[in-house]
Amino acid sequence: MKTYPKHYCGIFGIKDMPRAAEYAAYGLHAIQHRGQESAGIASTNGDKFFEHKGMGLVLRIFDNRILSGLEGQTAIGHNRYATTGKSELKNAQPLSVQCKRGGIALAHNGNLTNTKALRTELENHGVAFQTTTDSEIMLALLAQSDKPLDQAILDMMSKVEGAYSLVIMTETALIAVRDPHGFRPLSLGTLDGNPVIASETCAFDIIGARFEREVEPGEIVIFESNNVHTQRVANLPQRTLCAFEKVYFDRPDSKIDGQSVYGIRFAFGERLAKEYPIQGDIVVPILDGGKYAALGYAKASGIQLVEAFVRNHYEHRSFIQPNQSERDRTAEFKLNLIPELVRGKRVIIIDDSIVRGTTCKSRIKKVREAGAHEVHVLVSCPPHIHPCYYGIDFPDQSKLIAANNTQDEIRKKLDLDSLGYLSMEGFMEVLGQGHCLACWNGNYPTV
Amino acid sequence: MKTYPKHYCGIFGIKDMPRAAEYAAYGLHAIQHRGQESAGIASTNGDKFFEHKGMGLVLRIFDNRILSGLEGQTAIGHNRYATTGKSELKNAQPLSVQCKRGGIALAHNGNLTNTKALRTELENHGVAFQTTTDSEIMLALLAQSDKPLDQAILDMMSKVEGAYSLVIMTETALIAVRDPHGFRPLSLGTLDGNPVIASETCAFDIIGARFEREVEPGEIVIFESNNVHTQRVANLPQRTLCAFEKVYFDRPDSKIDGQSVYGIRFAFGERLAKEYPIQGDIVVPILDGGKYAALGYAKASGIQLVEAFVRNHYEHRSFIQPNQSERDRTAEFKLNLIPELVRGKRVIIIDDSIVRGTTCKSRIKKVREAGAHEVHVLVSCPPHIHPCYYGIDFPDQSKLIAANNTQDEIRKKLDLDSLGYLSMEGFMEVLGQGHCLACWNGNYPTV
Amino acid sequence: MKTYPKHYCGIFGIKDMPRAAEYAAYGLHAIQHRGQESAGIASTNGDKFFEHKGMGLVLRIFDNRILSGLEGQTAIGHNRYATTGKSELKNAQPLSVQCKRGGIALAHNGNLTNTKALRTELENHGVAFQTTTDSEIMLALLAQSDKPLDQAILDMMSKVEGAYSLVIMTETALIAVRDPHGFRPLSLGTLDGNPVIASETCAFDIIGARFEREVEPGEIVIFESNNVHTQRVANLPQRTLCAFEKVYFDRPDSKIDGQSVYGIRFAFGERLAKEYPIQGDIVVPILDGGKYAALGYAKASGIQLVEAFVRNHYEHRSFIQPNQSERDRTAEFKLNLIPELVRGKRVIIIDDSIVRGTTCKSRIKKVREAGAHEVHVLVSCPPHIHPCYYGIDFPDQSKLIAANNTQDEIRKKLDLDSLGYLSMEGFMEVLGQGHCLACWNGNYPTV
Amino acid sequence: MKTYPKHYCGIFGIKDMPRAAEYAAYGLHAIQHRGQESAGIASTNGDKFFEHKGMGLVLRIFDNRILSGLEGQTAIGHNRYATTGKSELKNAQPLSVQCKRGGIALAHNGNLTNTKALRTELENHGVAFQTTTDSEIMLALLAQSDKPLDQAILDMMSKVEGAYSLVIMTETALIAVRDPHGFRPLSLGTLDGNPVIASETCAFDIIGARFEREVEPGEIVIFESNNVHTQRVANLPQRTLCAFEKVYFDRPDSKIDGQSVYGIRFAFGERLAKEYPIQGDIVVPILDGGKYAALGYAKASGIQLVEAFVRNHYEHRSFIQPNQSERDRTAEFKLNLIPELVRGKRVIIIDDSIVRGTTCKSRIKKVREAGAHEVHVLVSCPPHIHPCYYGIDFPDQSKLIAANNTQDEIRKKLDLDSLGYLSMEGFMEVLGQGHCLACWNGNYPTV
Repeated sequence: MKTYPKHYCGIFGIKDMPRAAEYAAYGLHAIQHRGQESAGIASTNGDKFFEHKGMGLVLRIFDNRILSGLEGQTAIGHNRYATTGKSELKNAQPLSVQCKRGGIALAHNGNLTNTKALRTELENHGVAFQTTTDSEIMLALLAQSDKPLDQAILDMMSKVEGAYSLVIMTETALIAVRDPHGFRPLSLGTLDGNPVIASETCAFDIIGARFEREVEPGEIVIFESNNVHTQRVANLPQRTLCAFEKVYFDRPDSKIDGQSVYGIRFAFGERLAKEYPIQGDIVVPILDGGKYAALGYAKASGIQLVEAFVRNHYEHRSFIQPNQSERDRTAEFKLNLIPELVRGKRVIIIDDSIVRGTTCKSRIKKVREAGAHEVHVLVSCPPHIHPCYYGIDFPDQSKLIAANNTQDEIRKKLDLDSLGYLSMEGFMEVLGQGHCLACWNGNYPTV
Repeated sequence: MKTYPKHYCGIFGIKDMPRAAEYAAYGLHAIQHRGQESAGIASTNGDKFFEHKGMGLVLRIFDNRILSGLEGQTAIGHNRYATTGKSELKNAQPLSVQCKRGGIALAHNGNLTNTKALRTELENHGVAFQTTTDSEIMLALLAQSDKPLDQAILDMMSKVEGAYSLVIMTETALIAVRDPHGFRPLSLGTLDGNPVIASETCAFDIIGARFEREVEPGEIVIFESNNVHTQRVANLPQRTLCAFEKVYFDRPDSKIDGQSVYGIRFAFGERLAKEYPIQGDIVVPILDGGKYAALGYAKASGIQLVEAFVRNHYEHRSFIQPNQSERDRTAEFKLNLIPELVRGKRVIIIDDSIVRGTTCKSRIKKVREAGAHEVHVLVSCPPHIHPCYYGIDFPDQSKLIAANNTQDEIRKKLDLDSLGYLSMEGFMEVLGQGHCLACWNGNYPTV
Repeated sequence: MKTYPKHYCGIFGIKDMPRAAEYAAYGLHAIQHRGQESAGIASTNGDKFFEHKGMGLVLRIFDNRILSGLEGQTAIGHNRYATTGKSELKNAQPLSVQCKRGGIALAHNGNLTNTKALRTELENHGVAFQTTTDSEIMLALLAQSDKPLDQAILDMMSKVEGAYSLVIMTETALIAVRDPHGFRPLSLGTLDGNPVIASETCAFDIIGARFEREVEPGEIVIFESNNVHTQRVANLPQRTLCAFEKVYFDRPDSKIDGQSVYGIRFAFGERLAKEYPIQGDIVVPILDGGKYAALGYAKASGIQLVEAFVRNHYEHRSFIQPNQSERDRTAEFKLNLIPELVRGKRVIIIDDSIVRGTTCKSRIKKVREAGAHEVHVLVSCPPHIHPCYYGIDFPDQSKLIAANNTQDEIRKKLDLDSLGYLSMEGFMEVLGQGHCLACWNGNYPTV
Repeated sequence: MKTYPKHYCGIFGIKDMPRAAEYAAYGLHAIQHRGQESAGIASTNGDKFFEHKGMGLVLRIFDNRILSGLEGQTAIGHNRYATTGKSELKNAQPLSVQCKRGGIALAHNGNLTNTKALRTELENHGVAFQTTTDSEIMLALLAQSDKPLDQAILDMMSKVEGAYSLVIMTETALIAVRDPHGFRPLSLGTLDGNPVIASETCAFDIIGARFEREVEPGEIVIFESNNVHTQRVANLPQRTLCAFEKVYFDRPDSKIDGQSVYGIRFAFGERLAKEYPIQGDIVVPILDGGKYAALGYAKASGIQLVEAFVRNHYEHRSFIQPNQSERDRTAEFKLNLIPELVRGKRVIIIDDSIVRGTTCKSRIKKVREAGAHEVHVLVSCPPHIHPCYYGIDFPDQSKLIAANNTQDEIRKKLDLDSLGYLSMEGFMEVLGQGHCLACWNGNYPTV
C-alpha cells in the first residue's frame, strides 16, 4: 500500500446566490485552519467558468477586484495544507476541465490510496496528467464516461479507494460527494433557501447559512435547476469517520456528523478525570486543542483551570530559512508561559496529542524551570503509533514518539511525574461507533 | 489642548549581541499586538547605521536577507499601530538622523501633548520637518543641543510634555527613556549579560532574555561601552501609569511595573463577582481581554466558565473596501458562537470594555437568538467617557456609547437583563495608586 | 474556417548544457519582441521536470534563484504575445504532462486552424482539457499514441492543420518540429557542439551559439543521447513561409530561411525607389520596421536619410486604464518629431505597414504642423486586406483601413500628397517564391 | 575638492493644471533616460502636500490610483540615476519639508562641490540630516532664512557651489532655479498658458506644451498666483554649460540652450569627416549616441551609412547577480552585429565616447570576426581624461582608458586600423563658447 503526498484540505460550494465567489471566500476563510498553503475559487455564470488560485491565506489571495472577476451565482472553493513536500501553484485546487460534458470543476478533501494504479491505468489509456493531484484522476474518469453525470460519479466511486469528500461544479449543477467510509466530513446547509456545502459547519455560520444535514457516507447530492437529486452507492462498508478530526483538527464550533466538536472534547476531559484522578492544584490547557478537554477535566475534577500558557495570535515562523531545530524553536513562540502561575503548583497539563514529543518536551521544561512542584500530562486520545493514508499528514512512523517508546520511556524523556493517554475504551465511549482508528490501532478500513 | 494623531506602539532595543537585528525582529514580533501598521529596525556596527522599514506585520517586512543587511551588534525597533488617519511609510520608525553628535536613531511609544507649540518654536528656529512624528521633534531638540547626550536628553525632557517611552541608539550607546509620569511601560532585561529594552516583558521571553527591572518614570538609562549610566529628572510628578494598558492592551503574560497583567485581570473578575453576584448558569468570556477576568469571576462565584465564543485565529478583515457597516460585520467573524452552550442558560458575559457598543450588540443578539434565558454583561473597568491624549486611539467622544448614554440606556440598547461596569473603587483597589484614569474620569495628569 | 485566439510567440530549446535554463532565459530575452505577455521555461535533469512561468517580460519573471531551481542540462522556453483576449497564466507555455511515455513538455509558435474539430474529437474520446491552448491538443494526441515518439509526432502532424513550430522535451530528448507549410520560422544551432533551437537566429547570437540550418517545413529533428534523428512528412505541400514575419515582425539581425531580414527590408526600399521615384528632399523612417527600407530607398534614390522621429526607448503605455483613444495617444509617445528637420522639406516617410491608420495619421499631422512642404508615405509591402489564421494578430477586417477604403481614400484620410504601397510584383521579386501572402491576397494555403 | 556620490537626474514642474501629477508622470517618462533608479512626484492643492516615490522606472512606480492620490494643480517630479553607490528609497526626490515658511518641496539635478563643508556647518548649527542628498542641505538653508523666499534662494545660491538645476514648490508657488554656471539644462514652457519646467524640452513635447525659453544661468523664476517674478544673481561667472550632456546624455529631440542636440551631433560627424577623411566603404553607428554623428559623417563623406549593429529594445541586464565581467557581457546584449554587412568592408565606426574601452573592444572584435577588411573608430568628442564633479558619473580616473594610455596604445588595445577623436578645436567650433570642458581638459569652473 503505497501512497502519494497527503494533505488536509477544506472545501466549500454554493449555488444560486449573487456574488457566489464572495461567499466562497468567506467560507474558505472560516475553514482556513484546514489548509494554509494555497486556496482557489472557481465560479460559473451558467455559461463560462472563472477561476483564481494563489499561494497562501485566503485573505491574501482574494480581494474585491479578483472576486468581482469570478462571475456567476455558483462557486466552489478549496484550501490546501502545506505539507513538507513540494508546494506549487499548479497543484492548487479547484481543478477545472473542459470535456465532452462541458465544464467540470472539482475540489477534493482526502487522499486516495490507489492513486498509482489508477494513474498507470489511465495513462495507458492515453491520459496526459498535468498535476500530481488526486483530483485530476477523478476528473479524467468523469471525462471518459459516456453515462449521465450521476452514474459517471458512481462509476468513479467504484474505482477510487480511500478518503474523499468532494464538491463538483458544472455549468448547471453543484454536487456534493462523500466516500463510502465517510472519512472526511461534509455538510449541507442553506442560505436563503439555496444550497451551500462545506467541510465544517463553521463555514455556514460566517455567512449566516443554516446547517441542514451531513452528506452521508457514499452519498451523491446533485443540486441542478431547482431540484435536489440524491443517490447512494450500493454495498456500503461500515462507516469509519476520522476520529482525529474531532480530537484535533476540526474547529470546536463545528458540528461533525451530528456531534459537537466542543462537546466531544469536553467529554474527553471528563473521561480523563475519571481515568486519571490526579491530586493536582491546577489544570493547564495547551492551545485550543487542549482547552476544551481541560475545561471538562476541570469541571469533573473540581481542580481550577489556569491559562498559564499565553498564545501569540500572530503568525508563527522563523525569519530565517527553517530547518527542524529552527522549527522547534519557533513552535515555542506560539505559547509563552506565565511562570508565577505554575510556581509551587502540582500542574496537570492537558494536550490533544503528542506526535514527535519535541515541542511538548520544551514546554514541560519551562514549567519545571518556573518552579512547578509536579508536572503531569494527560492526552485526550490514545497514543499515535501508525501512519494515516487518508489525508492526515503525520510524520514518518520512525518519528512518532509513541511508536518507538513505551509509555514509561516517554514519561521519562519528557521529564514528567506522570503521563496518561485516554484509554481506547474511554475514547470510543465518547466518540461512539463508526470511526477510523487506524492511526491508533493500525486497522485500516480500506485494506 | 490640541493633539496630533494618536497611536499605540511597541519599542525594542538590544546591544552587544551578534545578529542584533534578528533579536529585534523577534522582540517586535512578540509585541506585534501593540502596532500592526508598520515596523522598522535600525542597527549600527559602531560606525554606520543600517535601517529597514515597511508597512504591515513584522513577519512580512523582515526576512533573512533583509536582516543580514542590518549589520552590527546594536539594534532598535518599532511597531506602529494603524490609526484611522493617514498611514505612510515616511512616518514609520525608528527615525535616524546625522547631526553634529554623529548618528542618532530613535523609536517612540506614546504621544506628546505640546507637539504643535514645539514644532512652531523649532520651525521658527529654522528646523525643516520631513515627517509628522513626535520623534522628529525630539531628534531636532537633541541635534541642537551642545551638551553631553545625557544632559541633552534631560533638557529635551524638560521641554516635551505628554507620554513617551523611548529607545535611542547612537554609534556607541543604547538608551532607554521614560517620561516623568510613566504613562507607557518600558522594561530592562539582559541576554547573556547584555542589555535589552522592551515595551513589554513578553519580548524578553521570546528571545530568552531575563527581566531585570522597569525603567522608572523620568529615568534615563544609558548603556555605553560596558557601563550603565542612569539619571532621573528632578521634581518628578506623581506617577500616572496608563491603567487601560493593563485592562486591555498589554499581553497577559507581560509584567508591567511590577504587576502581572494576568493577575490584575483575574482580580478584576474576582472583584466583579463581589460587586455583581448574579444568579447565572455560565460565565462566558469575550476574547483574550475578557478571558482572565472571566476566570476570576468563575472562581470567585463558583459559576462554570464556558468558552461559548470560538475565535478564528486568522486575520480578520473584509474582502471588499471596508466601510463602517462592513467593519462591524467582519468584527463578528472573529468570534463564532456555539449556540447549544448558551441555550436555556442564564449567561454572564465578561468583556474588557464597551467602546462604541456595535460589536457588543451584535454578539448579544446572537446569544439571545441561540435561546439564552438571561443575558448579563459585566465590564472589567469603569465606563469610558473621555478621550486619551497619551497615545491610546479611542474614537471621538461623540461615538463613545458611555459618554452619550446612561448606564440603563446602554443596557436597553444592548438588550440586556443587566449591565455592570466595575466600580472605580473596585478598579483602583485592584490597580493600586499611581495610574492615569483620564479616559474614565477626565483628570488629565499633564494639564 | 473558425479559429481560436491568435498569438505571436517565440520558442527556444537547448540540450546537454550546464545551467540550461539560464541559456533558455537569455535566448527568450533575445526574442522578447515575439511575445511580451507571459514566458515560461521547463527543464529536465533526465529524471524530473522543473518548470516556471509568469506574466510579463522574461527579465521580470526569471532571476538567479528561480533559474537555479530549474535543474538539468536540457530546457525549453516560450514567450507569449499579449492579444486583446484573455490573458491568463494557465495558458502560458511550455505545457508539461506526464503520460505513459513519461514526461513531455511542449512549446508552440503558430496557430492551428482545425482546433475546434480536434478538441471535439478528443473530448469525445474522453480527454479533459485544462487550457485553451493548441499545445494541449498536440500533447493529448502524443499521449494517446502507442507508437514510438517520432512516429507519434508524424501521426499528430497528419491530424493538425495550420501553423506550428514546436520545441518538445522529454526526459531524454529535445525535438524540433515545423509544420509542412513552414509558416513560422525555426532554426537549429550548436553551442559547444550541443543542440540549440530557436524561432530566430538572434537567440543564438546572444548566447554565442552557431547557426547551423533551418528546420525544414514538415521536418522533425530529434536529439537524443548523442544522436540526431531527422524525419520528414510525406507529400509535402508547397512551402508558404509567412512573408509578414520578414516585413515587420522578425528582428533585422535574424536570418530566416536563408534570407537576411535586414537585406530583404533594404531591398524593399530599393524597389520602392524604383516604383515611386518621388522628388523629395528627405527620407524619414518610422521605427525599426521602416528604417532598413528607408536606408535602401535613400541609397537607391540618392535622397538624404533623416531620422526626424526620435524613439523613447522605455516602455510605452498610459498611466491610466487604457481605452482605444488613450492607446492611440500613447502610441505617439513612442516617437517624437524634431520639427526643424522637416520644416520646408518635401518629406518621404517610409513605414512597414498601415493597419488601422490612426497612429500613422497623427504622425503625418505632426509633420504637416512642423511645416513640411510635401508629405509622401511609402509602405514596404502591399495593402493588408485579409485576416491571418496562422498566428499573426491583426484587428478585425472591419478595422483594416485598406480593406475598407481605396488607396486614394486612404491618401485623403491621411492628408498625404501621395501614398504608395509596394506592388505585389515588387514584393514577390524581393521575397522569392514560397511565401504565404494570405493577408494581402486572401489565398489561404491550408484551405 | 572632495565630493559625494554623483548622479544624473531629470526634473519637472507644472502649475495650475488639473491632474498636475499625471502631467508630471508623463514628463518624467519623457526624460527617463536621465535617471532610472528611482522617481518621485510631489503635488499640492494649495493647502496640503502629497507625495509618492519609488524605486525603478516611472511607469512602474505610478499608476492611475497613485496619481489620483497626488491631488492639486501644481506638481514637481524627479528621476534619479542608479550610481554604483547605495541605492535607497530614502534618498529619492523630491524632498518635502514643513518649516516656518510652510511646505517646501525640492527636486535637484546636479551635484554640489562643497557639500561636506555645508553639512558640517549646518550640523554645527543644530541641523539633523535624514538623507545624504544635496537637496536636504538646500532645504535646510531655506528653512533657516527669515528673508522672503526669492531672497532666501539667492542667499542659498551664494553659499552652495557646483551644479544645480532646481524645481521648487510651495503651497502657492512653482520656482525654477539654475546655478550661475548653468552646468545642467533647464527649460521653461507653457501648457494652455500655464507654466511648465523641465530638464529637457522633449518633456514638453510629450504633453503638448510649448517651449518658451531656457532658464538663464544664475536665474530664479518664480510663478506665483498669476505672476512671474524673475531675478538673477549678481556677479555672474562665465557660463559653462555641460558639453557632455550634448555629446551623449540629452535626447536628440531636445533643444538645450538654444541648440538642437540632433544638429550638434550631426555637425560633430561632419567635422569628423573633415578631420578624418578615411577611405572606408561603410559608416556604422553605435547606438543613438553615434547615430546622428554617423549621419553627419555619411553625408559629408558620401560614404554609405549601414546600421550593422541592431538594438534589442528590451531592458538589458543579467539574470544573475551582476559583477563587472557579467556587466560587460550583458552590455553586449544590447547590440547584435549583422556580420554579412561588414564582411570584406572597410568599416568606419562612429561612437560618442570611449570610457573604459571594454564594451568597445568586444564590439570591434565581433566586427573583425565577421571579416571586416579594415576597422576604424571615430569618436565624436575629445578623449575623456578627468573626472566630473558636477553630476556626471564617470568611473575612477584609473579606469578611464584615455587617462592611462596614449591614443596609439588605445588603438592597439582595441585592435584598430585607426582611431580618431574629434579635435578640441573642432569640438568647440561646433559647440560654441561657454561650455564646461573639464572632463576633457581638467579646467574646473568652480575651483
